[in-house]
Amino acid sequence: MLNQSPSLDPVFHALADPTRRVMVERLTQGPASVSELARPLDMSLSAVMQHLQVLESTGLVTSHKEGRVRTCRIEPMVLQSAEDWIARTRAQWERRLDRLAEFLADESDGERSK
Amino acid sequence: MLNQSPSLDPVFHALADPTRRVMVERLTQGPASVSELARPLDMSLSAVMQHLQVLESTGLVTSHKEGRVRTCRIEPMVLQSAEDWIARTRAQWERRLDRLAEFLADESDGERSK
Repeated sequence: MLNQSPSLDPVFHALADPTRRVMVERLTQGPASVSELARPLDMSLSAVMQHLQVLESTGLVTSHKEGRVRTCRIEPMVLQSAEDWIARTRAQWERRLDRLAEFLADESDGERSK
Repeated sequence: MLNQSPSLDPVFHALADPTRRVMVERLTQGPASVSELARPLDMSLSAVMQHLQVLESTGLVTSHKEGRVRTCRIEPMVLQSAEDWIARTRAQWERRLDRLAEFLADESDGERSK
């Protein structure tokens, strides 16, 4: 059985929503309060909080409350784990293409030398 | 509002399941029949077919039936679109870190020249 990474499940699930991707993109520019995260989004603060909870449950985002302001930050290592899986998987496919190209080149050489 | 890519939703959703990731990993090694995809997985052929339908609905995988055998292939460009989004998002965060480092270095120089 190939390697399975259960911890990637919630990360890819979190990224499967355009609102949550917008929140992640915003946080790459620096920490933001929940109100700042909500500003470009056409939804209630409580809906934004629900998306934030999904992001926090994966570890993609952490938040810290001081007084009445909750400040959110991105955790790029978690994003990196998802990128690594995709990059590794695509690299496997490219290696296969390279082997296929080599095989076809050898075949072609073999035909010419007959 | 930041850029939203609705077509990424089903791709990330498809990748949020470990069985589907194993199927994608297998297909990077070359085309496979549904039986070959099912072999390392502890589940029925019909369960594998359901996962295959999710993968096909995203365009990540295509399949073609000849006689009684359905052969599946990966479509790496779709995988690339998900990788591109993550890489772009992480790069934004790294650029911000660089700007922060430059700012702190300038501040430190300013303090020293006082």
